[in-house]
Amino acid sequence: MVEATRGPVLIFMFGATGDLARRKLYPALYELFRKDYKFAVIGMARRQHTHESYRSMIDRTLNPSADQRRRFLKRFYYQPLDIGNPNHFVLLKNISDQIDSQYHLKGNRIFYLSLAPRFFGTATIHLKKSGLTETDGWKRLVIEKPFGNNLASARQLNSELLKVFDESEIYRIDHYLGKEMVQNIEALRFANPVFESVWNHRSIANVQITLSETLGVGDRANYYDQTGALLDMVQNHIMQLLTLTAMEPPSQFDPEDIRQEKVKVLKSIRPMSRDNIADKIVRAQYKAGVMPDGTRISGYHEENNINETSDTETFVAARFFIDNYRWTGVPFYIRTGKRMATKCTEVVIEFKDIPNNPYFHKFTHIGPNLLVIHIQPDAGLSLKLNVKQFSDDGETSPVSMNFSRTGKSKNVVPDAYERLLSDCLKGDSTNFTRWDEVAYSWALTDSIVATWNSVPLDYYEAGTMGPKSSDKLLAKDGFRWWPLTRME
Amino acid sequence: MVEATRGPVLIFMFGATGDLARRKLYPALYELFRKDYKFAVIGMARRQHTHESYRSMIDRTLNPSADQRRRFLKRFYYQPLDIGNPNHFVLLKNISDQIDSQYHLKGNRIFYLSLAPRFFGTATIHLKKSGLTETDGWKRLVIEKPFGNNLASARQLNSELLKVFDESEIYRIDHYLGKEMVQNIEALRFANPVFESVWNHRSIANVQITLSETLGVGDRANYYDQTGALLDMVQNHIMQLLTLTAMEPPSQFDPEDIRQEKVKVLKSIRPMSRDNIADKIVRAQYKAGVMPDGTRISGYHEENNINETSDTETFVAARFFIDNYRWTGVPFYIRTGKRMATKCTEVVIEFKDIPNNPYFHKFTHIGPNLLVIHIQPDAGLSLKLNVKQFSDDGETSPVSMNFSRTGKSKNVVPDAYERLLSDCLKGDSTNFTRWDEVAYSWALTDSIVATWNSVPLDYYEAGTMGPKSSDKLLAKDGFRWWPLTRME
Repeated sequence: MVEATRGPVLIFMFGATGDLARRKLYPALYELFRKDYKFAVIGMARRQHTHESYRSMIDRTLNPSADQRRRFLKRFYYQPLDIGNPNHFVLLKNISDQIDSQYHLKGNRIFYLSLAPRFFGTATIHLKKSGLTETDGWKRLVIEKPFGNNLASARQLNSELLKVFDESEIYRIDHYLGKEMVQNIEALRFANPVFESVWNHRSIANVQITLSETLGVGDRANYYDQTGALLDMVQNHIMQLLTLTAMEPPSQFDPEDIRQEKVKVLKSIRPMSRDNIADKIVRAQYKAGVMPDGTRISGYHEENNINETSDTETFVAARFFIDNYRWTGVPFYIRTGKRMATKCTEVVIEFKDIPNNPYFHKFTHIGPNLLVIHIQPDAGLSLKLNVKQFSDDGETSPVSMNFSRTGKSKNVVPDAYERLLSDCLKGDSTNFTRWDEVAYSWALTDSIVATWNSVPLDYYEAGTMGPKSSDKLLAKDGFRWWPLTRME
Repeated sequence: MVEATRGPVLIFMFGATGDLARRKLYPALYELFRKDYKFAVIGMARRQHTHESYRSMIDRTLNPSADQRRRFLKRFYYQPLDIGNPNHFVLLKNISDQIDSQYHLKGNRIFYLSLAPRFFGTATIHLKKSGLTETDGWKRLVIEKPFGNNLASARQLNSELLKVFDESEIYRIDHYLGKEMVQNIEALRFANPVFESVWNHRSIANVQITLSETLGVGDRANYYDQTGALLDMVQNHIMQLLTLTAMEPPSQFDPEDIRQEKVKVLKSIRPMSRDNIADKIVRAQYKAGVMPDGTRISGYHEENNINETSDTETFVAARFFIDNYRWTGVPFYIRTGKRMATKCTEVVIEFKDIPNNPYFHKFTHIGPNLLVIHIQPDAGLSLKLNVKQFSDDGETSPVSMNFSRTGKSKNVVPDAYERLLSDCLKGDSTNFTRWDEVAYSWALTDSIVATWNSVPLDYYEAGTMGPKSSDKLLAKDGFRWWPLTRME
C-alpha cells in the first residue's frame, strides 16, 4: 500500500513558462501548498527570468482570492536553461543543492517534464550526467503526453528513460486519470455490489464512450495534422476510460494490481484486422458547418497551417470487443472528434432488455436502463429507469435518478492536475500509465493505423455529432448512440 | 387484458355521509368526472337528506377551486336507507331505475359499501332480493376493509358475498394498492432489468418494510383495541407491500396473473411456529412519551375507551422468510406501530456486501447499497451508493441518487382512491385483493395470533421507533433497521 506522505520534495519544473504550467500546474501547486504539502520549486525554460520576475509570472496565474500567495511564491526559484546545454545542468545542480538544504528537502526530487516530446530523452540524460538524479532521497519523473507516436518510438523513448529512472519512478501523465468521475469509476464499480453484480455480458448490452470537443485544432495545427484523432485521443484518454470500465477487480487496491488489471483488458481487446474493417471503424474530417450557437466554422482544410490535401482524421468512431469471460459479445463503441455539436465526455452503460418483458407489449414509451457516468462538463452519475406515469393511461416512461458532484460542491472539487500532483508527491502511481499500458495501447492503435488505407475518409459537418457512418456502426448491431445529456 | 372504458355506470354509495366518503370518495369522483368518466351516484345512509342537502354536503368536501362543481353535483341523488329494512331497497330500486334511464347508464352498477363490516352481508342480500343486482349491464361490488377479523369470519363473509356476486365482480379495497409508489413497485421491478437481475437472494441481504404512524387510536379506540396492529396493518397493507416486493414476474400483466403471483408468495411464507417465537416477532404497546415535536403523549392505557388492562399491541415487528428459490435465506423484516417518532411508509432493499470487498479494508465510511422505495409521505426512489470523496484522504462515502414523484409534480399525482375508483370503473381488478390473497393473509396472521400467549407484551415510549426488542430482532441476524429518511 502507498504511504501518504506530503513531501518534503524539490520539484524541477521543466517548461516553467509554458501554457500547461501557467494554466494548470501553478494553481494546482498553490492548492497543495494550502493543504500542507512541503515542497520548493525550481522553474526552468529558455526564457530569461529572475526569481522575482518568475514569481510575478506565477502570481498572475493564481486566483485573485489566494490569501497565502506571498508565503507560497517565496518557495519558487528560476534557472534559465537550454535542454541541450550540459553546463546549464551543472548550474541547476548547484542551485538545487542550496535549496534542498535550505528547506530540508532530504534529497527528494520530482522532475516534471512539461516539454515538447523531442526533449524528453535529452533532458533525462543530462539530469543523470549532471548528477542531479544521484540523491539520498527518492526521485520521480513526471512526463506529459504524447509518449511516442507509435509503439516503436514509444519503446525508444522508454528505453532512454530507463537508463536514468526505474519504471516505478516514472509517472506518465494522462490528465483524464485525474478527473473526478474517472477516479470514481473504480469506486463506483467495486464499492457498490448493486452495480458489480450486473457488470458483465449477461446484463449489459453495450458500452458507449464519447469524448467530443467543440474546439478545432487551434494553435496545435502542425502537431494535430501529423497526429489525428486516433492517436491524440483514443490511444490515451479513451483507452483509459475503456480499461477502467472493463477491468476485473484487482486483488488489492494498490497501484500495481490495479494497473495489472487494466493491462489485462488491453490484452483482451480483439485486434483490428482488415476484414470488413469499414464495419468496425469510421474516420472522418470536418467540413464547414454551423455550431449550435450559430457560429460559422470553416472546414478543416481551411484552418491555418493545415495542408489542403491533408487526410488526417478529426473524428474516429470504432467498435471494440473484449474477448474475455466478462465481456464476450458486448460491443464497446467509442467516438471522439473536434468541432462536434457539444463538448462532453461520458460513458454510457446500456443494459439489456429483459427478454419478452411484458411491459414491452403493453407500453410503448419504455427504454432500456442506462447508467451514465458523466465525466465532463458535468461530474456525476445518472441512472435511467422506467416508472409508471399516472397519466390516465398508466403508461410507463423513463425517468432519471441523478447524483452530481458538480453544483453545490463545485468549489471544493479539485482539478485533475491537483490530484495527480498530489498522488505523485505521495508516491501513488495508480493514476499514471504504466509502460505496458502504453505499449499495448500503441499496439492497438498501430494495428488500426495499418488499416487506414482500407478505410475511406468520411466527412461530417462541423457542429454535428459526426458522420452518418458513425450512426451506422451501431445501427448494424441494432443499437444507437444515446443522446448526450446534461444533468439537471 | 382489461378494456379501458369509462362507464357509464350508476354508483350506489352506501355510507354516503361517512368520514371516508367525505374525505376521499367525493373528491376522487370529482377528479374522475373532470377526466370524462360517465357516472351518476345515489348516496345512502340512515340520515335524512334531500338531494339538495346531500349535494351541499358534497360541495363542502370539494376543493374550493373546483370549477365544474355544478355539473358534477347535479349527478348526485340521495335515498335515506336503513340497511336492515327491505322496503328501503325497493325505494332504492325505483329511483335507481329512473336515474339509469335518465343518464343512459345501460344498467351498469357499482355498489360501494363504505359501511361497518357487520352490515356487509345484510346489504348484499337485500341488494339481491330487491332485484337491484338483476341488471342488463355489468355489476361490481366495492368493499372496504376489514374483510373479516380472522380466516373463519372472512370465509363466512365471503360465502355471503358469493351468493350475490361472482369473485370477479368483487373489488376488495386495500387503499395502499392505490398509492403512487406501491403501484410503481411492479414497474420498478419488471420494466427495469438493472434491478430485476439483482432481485434475489444472491444479491439482497434483507428487506425492511416499515409503516409507522405518529397518531394514536383517535376515535377508533373500540375497534382498535379489539384488533391491534397485527390485524389492522400487517394482514392487509404490509402483506401487500411484501408480496409486491417479492413476487415472481407474472406470465401476463393482467389482473389474474399478477394476483396469482402474489398468492404464490403468501403460500411460500414460512408459517410462524411457537419454537423460539420471541426471536421472530415482537409485540408492544406504547407508554407515555414525548413526540419529536415536543408534544407529550399519554400511554395507550390512558386513551379514551381503552381498558386499563388491555394487552392489545400497538406495535408489531416480525421476521418472515419466503421459502422459495428466489428468496431462500433472505429475512423480510416488517414493523408497524402507532405513536412512533415519524409517519413514514417505506421499503428498504439492503444489498449484500461484496465478499472481502477491498474497499472495506481501505476505507471506513462505506455502507451497503440500499434501494429505498418511499411510499409516504415522499413518493419516490433512492439508491444509496458509495463514491470516492475528494477530501485529501480520498475516502469512499455514501451518497444518494434520488427520483421523486413528489415535489414539482405534486398537484397532478392522483390520490389512491381516485386511482382505485378509476380502476373499478374500468373493470381492472389488479389493485384489489382477491379472495385467496385475503385467505392466505388471514391464515398467516391467525398463526401468529395463536402464538400470542408465548410472546410477552413489550412496551415502548411514545415518540420512539418502538421497543429495543425490535432492534434486537435484526441485530441477532447481524442487521439493523436503517433510519427512515426524507428525500431531499
